[in-house]
Amino acid sequence: MDTVNIKMLAERLGLSTSTVSRAFRGNSDISAKTKQRILEAAAAMGYQPNLYASNLRDRKSRTIAIIVPEFANNFFSQAIHGIEKVARSNGYHTLIYVTDDDYEREAAFVADIGNGRVEGVLMSVSGEEYQHGYLGVLAKRNIPFVFFDRYYDDVQATRVTANDYASSYAATRHLIDNGCTRVAYLVVNKHVSIGKIRLQGYLDAVRDAGQQPDDALVVECTNDRQEIEHRLRSAYYNLRPDGIFASVERLAIAAYRFCHQEGIAIPADLKVIGFSSLEIADLLNPGLSTVTQPAFDMGATAATVLFDALAKGLKSTPDEHITLESILIERESSVT
Amino acid sequence: MDTVNIKMLAERLGLSTSTVSRAFRGNSDISAKTKQRILEAAAAMGYQPNLYASNLRDRKSRTIAIIVPEFANNFFSQAIHGIEKVARSNGYHTLIYVTDDDYEREAAFVADIGNGRVEGVLMSVSGEEYQHGYLGVLAKRNIPFVFFDRYYDDVQATRVTANDYASSYAATRHLIDNGCTRVAYLVVNKHVSIGKIRLQGYLDAVRDAGQQPDDALVVECTNDRQEIEHRLRSAYYNLRPDGIFASVERLAIAAYRFCHQEGIAIPADLKVIGFSSLEIADLLNPGLSTVTQPAFDMGATAATVLFDALAKGLKSTPDEHITLESILIERESSVT
Repeated sequence: MDTVNIKMLAERLGLSTSTVSRAFRGNSDISAKTKQRILEAAAAMGYQPNLYASNLRDRKSRTIAIIVPEFANNFFSQAIHGIEKVARSNGYHTLIYVTDDDYEREAAFVADIGNGRVEGVLMSVSGEEYQHGYLGVLAKRNIPFVFFDRYYDDVQATRVTANDYASSYAATRHLIDNGCTRVAYLVVNKHVSIGKIRLQGYLDAVRDAGQQPDDALVVECTNDRQEIEHRLRSAYYNLRPDGIFASVERLAIAAYRFCHQEGIAIPADLKVIGFSSLEIADLLNPGLSTVTQPAFDMGATAATVLFDALAKGLKSTPDEHITLESILIERESSVT
Repeated sequence: MDTVNIKMLAERLGLSTSTVSRAFRGNSDISAKTKQRILEAAAAMGYQPNLYASNLRDRKSRTIAIIVPEFANNFFSQAIHGIEKVARSNGYHTLIYVTDDDYEREAAFVADIGNGRVEGVLMSVSGEEYQHGYLGVLAKRNIPFVFFDRYYDDVQATRVTANDYASSYAATRHLIDNGCTRVAYLVVNKHVSIGKIRLQGYLDAVRDAGQQPDDALVVECTNDRQEIEHRLRSAYYNLRPDGIFASVERLAIAAYRFCHQEGIAIPADLKVIGFSSLEIADLLNPGLSTVTQPAFDMGATAATVLFDALAKGLKSTPDEHITLESILIERESSVT
């Protein structure tokens, strides 16, 4: 098997080795038909394409790293698709690191990356309340990086986020326009920036509608399913909200499950809207109204900034904040 | 920032460097309190933990690779959680490679892995209809690997799958027991082994119930959403099935969307069951009956086999097939 090399394959096909090589690099400058012919011959001869032989020669890994807090999360899935599309069109591979929202793992991953595995990094961070000195290794090694969705205020790099304040305001306003006078806001951590920004949008919309914000209606939840249910139960029966705005998808789902269990009718008894990238929000019972971030575009934009920096040989990405617009999709769950 | 090293941190804390080092390795042999103290001091001093310094010394990457066909897929998300739990308890990192069901990418990833990034590999494959000679690089470099869910028949390694034949048979039987006489089977690719095995379970259940299998009711779909809808429309209006068994989650979702659009009542007009790891199947309209693979356990089992091999210094994993049981969960969508 190891005896078949690219030269033999090229000879057999009557093509140049560079044409054959391009078939395995995902380059778009050869025809689909030629590519197909090359791949079939390669499979038949047992040729093993090795993108990395040439990369080793030019000392480039042609790989970027993506660091995300969670894997089983629709937002990150879609953002990663956006990143991979751009990476592929640049002939790069991606490696995905999942921190499980653990700062220590993030720091360890960054140290690993600093050892030269990759040429650039896209990251959505997990350790806002800690120090971020460990990112210095990237600057030292000239590995540019871009933040997407979750970023560190004190670290200079391009940040790609959605317009969370405006969309949080709009979602709250939407519930109020549909008759809600006691909108509860569900949040995982109101002290991290994304939680704070969304909370502010909610509070301002409540105030601007002439309603009195009630601290008790800001319900801070954990990541534990039983604990969330306990908080929801306590909030619902003690505070009697008529609307719920979930700042993350998981909490919107938890609210649905709680309502299904308790026989609380959505939207008649309780209206619900949530930040969510769930592609089947329309198939839920009832269809869930969502604030949907442009996850794919956020990933693609962040990747484009990174590849621009790589193409220009920059050691870091510009200290800029790029904001993309979320959309509010009204479905049955929030409308009278 | 770079000036703070582990020795300085240990001195400041009055601890040995090996104790401090253990705090960053996730070892469980130091108390949570000590660990917390170390991490806080590290953050305060700007110390950058580098797990890999010691790994470089012992020439181990302490990293395993996971190769999966898809990212935005609940089965793989849960399987990866299972893998990561086991990897973490062994003090290993994981790198995730997503092939997008593309054989060329899989081959390129394997070549990359062969360059020494990782110590072992867990993979769910994408190129069943091609040659698999490129996997030889793993054997050559003594990198053991384990297949989970999707595997190559012609490659020797441990294979961890669910009991797909039995659960496919049971799901079809369940629809028949609920009155269906024309169960359509939706499949993406009936020629790959997982498609074939599940198809066989369906066909045998139909035959064993004394019904005549109808080739037209085996509906082969693509990955394209519009194309799937077209196939469903044609199948529904031409063949008038009274039950649908979707061999993958995506097709169950597509069937739901089609029924919602067309005003076809589930389960009254059409009963639906599908292979699915969707955690919110109960919140769909109506609740979706599922055959649910033990995704987390499959990942954890595959990882355990891999770490056993690594612990024993084996160059490959045993040529064994480990089968775990799926469960059939009856919800509203399939019951009269």
